[in-house]
Amino acid sequence: MALITLLSDFGSASGYPSAMKGVILSLCPSAQIVDISHDVERHHVRAGAFLLWMVVPYFPEKTVHCAVVDPGVGTTRRPLAIESGGQLFVGPDNGLLIPAAERLGKPKVYHIQNEKYFRAKVSRTFHGRDIFAPVAAHIVLGLPLHELGPQITDFIRLSFGEGVRRGRVLEGEIIYIDAFGNVITNISGKLLEGITPGTMLVVEVSRKVASARAVQTYAEGEQGELIVTVGSHGQVEIAMNLGSAAARLRAHVGETVLITPKL
Amino acid sequence: MALITLLSDFGSASGYPSAMKGVILSLCPSAQIVDISHDVERHHVRAGAFLLWMVVPYFPEKTVHCAVVDPGVGTTRRPLAIESGGQLFVGPDNGLLIPAAERLGKPKVYHIQNEKYFRAKVSRTFHGRDIFAPVAAHIVLGLPLHELGPQITDFIRLSFGEGVRRGRVLEGEIIYIDAFGNVITNISGKLLEGITPGTMLVVEVSRKVASARAVQTYAEGEQGELIVTVGSHGQVEIAMNLGSAAARLRAHVGETVLITPKL
Amino acid sequence: MALITLLSDFGSASGYPSAMKGVILSLCPSAQIVDISHDVERHHVRAGAFLLWMVVPYFPEKTVHCAVVDPGVGTTRRPLAIESGGQLFVGPDNGLLIPAAERLGKPKVYHIQNEKYFRAKVSRTFHGRDIFAPVAAHIVLGLPLHELGPQITDFIRLSFGEGVRRGRVLEGEIIYIDAFGNVITNISGKLLEGITPGTMLVVEVSRKVASARAVQTYAEGEQGELIVTVGSHGQVEIAMNLGSAAARLRAHVGETVLITPKL
Repeated sequence: MALITLLSDFGSASGYPSAMKGVILSLCPSAQIVDISHDVERHHVRAGAFLLWMVVPYFPEKTVHCAVVDPGVGTTRRPLAIESGGQLFVGPDNGLLIPAAERLGKPKVYHIQNEKYFRAKVSRTFHGRDIFAPVAAHIVLGLPLHELGPQITDFIRLSFGEGVRRGRVLEGEIIYIDAFGNVITNISGKLLEGITPGTMLVVEVSRKVASARAVQTYAEGEQGELIVTVGSHGQVEIAMNLGSAAARLRAHVGETVLITPKL
Repeated sequence: MALITLLSDFGSASGYPSAMKGVILSLCPSAQIVDISHDVERHHVRAGAFLLWMVVPYFPEKTVHCAVVDPGVGTTRRPLAIESGGQLFVGPDNGLLIPAAERLGKPKVYHIQNEKYFRAKVSRTFHGRDIFAPVAAHIVLGLPLHELGPQITDFIRLSFGEGVRRGRVLEGEIIYIDAFGNVITNISGKLLEGITPGTMLVVEVSRKVASARAVQTYAEGEQGELIVTVGSHGQVEIAMNLGSAAARLRAHVGETVLITPKL
Repeated sequence: MALITLLSDFGSASGYPSAMKGVILSLCPSAQIVDISHDVERHHVRAGAFLLWMVVPYFPEKTVHCAVVDPGVGTTRRPLAIESGGQLFVGPDNGLLIPAAERLGKPKVYHIQNEKYFRAKVSRTFHGRDIFAPVAAHIVLGLPLHELGPQITDFIRLSFGEGVRRGRVLEGEIIYIDAFGNVITNISGKLLEGITPGTMLVVEVSRKVASARAVQTYAEGEQGELIVTVGSHGQVEIAMNLGSAAARLRAHVGETVLITPKL
């Protein structure tokens, strides 16, 4: 099998992802290509990192993930190839690949330098097509990562942090807001286990306070009611049945979240 | 061949469809996966059912359609597997699959119960990934549906109804509004055959009245003119050349439509 | 290999592209299908032509490009099949395919007439599904183009024109605005080579005048600063780091662009 995923902020309507696919299929005609998303908010490395982190556990060994949210394209930022837990990653050295790679194991990170595996002419603005796509194709064809360049340890880190419990209060940070307006936090779902479903909660997001209810499924929420549940990614999430929790809370990625059971 | 289609309301940018694809390709690396749409209006079972109904005639035998518009996820709503006319369906018991299955033949409907074919850990909010995707992969690999659970007949029905002709008036209901603002009705295209192309019509949608013209192709319409034609799905459709008929008529799914030739 | 690309203005959420895929995979189950875009602005032949022109150099020989932006569907406009530079094209005779085909070589253009390769019943509004998709599938399976109909030379031309240098002034036209608001011109990147990176410029778009700076990568731009660079498509492009140049300049496709170095 030759499975490559693509993630970018190019826009699914832009044609740019298809240029990457043309490059990949020219080198590896039998590649299976899966789009994770091409509509990551532009230049939002953290949002791209979250999507990649969210989905990698569901892909088989040897999958090559080619991810390009790359505001530093054309500067000195390094191109990376990573092996972790049997899966492979290609993309820019800006933290994008790191949470996903660390989720799967202990990453081995290589600085891609061998231009032999690039397209003959590398544009300054589209390394996705000219560096990352052809390198991903060569990797899926069997190229060992150490052929690409030296192993490094000073790559740029990115972490979503980890929410904590302080007494009765769960405290964390918003790491992603999905298209439904669900507010996903860095609080592990395990921390919600101590709270009985049905418990009324106070949710505070950057000083905006609202009532919510702990539930096990979206459908338990009344229309317009804020609910707190464990999302499919395993994280605590604030949602609204048939509505947008993010709009209601005017919530943004990076804001602090406090969740407290009412007495 | 191993052909699986996916349809959902997860959002094409959300990453969730790719998690389903990872699960499918882990079990069946050679699967061809075709997205019907992941941008069905959230929780809008009827809109999803229409899209599925619209496209199934164009897929080959043995295609497995995995469709997830599932506001009841995590509740007692049942997961279903269906065989009809040589194609197969997997999804929730809320009517989503039924019009498409009935279009192809007489559906045999099974209540999926055999957890052996689920992912090891089933989340309460993402059965698409944890139940429907792996079951679809097992079916495309050859699993007979009766291995999944008992055949049932009390599944939830969904019908678009059927428009009728009363004297000179065609009467029906809006079943879908597409991204162009074309208003698709449950009136069969055959009922329009009695009306000569070029005939001027009165269109009434929930008491909003407008003039329109019967035509055979979109291009016959003048800019901004309402036209009535038979769409590619075989249904009577109200459209506007280079404009949105739905916006002009402030039309919504479920509203009544009356079409009357002018004298 | 059997590689088919699809481009249309049907909307990626509409279900229509998947009907085309069902038709293709029914005839050629092993086809690899790559979406270029299905969100071309409706009926905007020029925008579709640009996307196709932009990506074809990255696809391998024998790729079949099936493109449908087709306001004239159902009228007398002809269906075409084209061979150029080893790649193949199927779509309407309205100019859509021509810039891409001419970019690859000297096109041989055929008027598709042989209904044997159409779907049995051809709708008046969806030739993508009923003519272009099945013809593309037959071509990828090896059908020679002359089996489809006679070679013609009176097909409809479309050209983006070519920007020029007049003294110190680069003069051209906007041929595309991408989802980021980057303004892509018909001025070849080669004409920018004479201008040292860092040079301050005056940009004039239909009498709206603004300052800009010549740079080599997006990241060199200050936040909100207009920059002029050579995009990945090789054309001169006006962009804004972390912002929309098109919004700032209220720029539209077809408008004249003048770029002048400041003294």
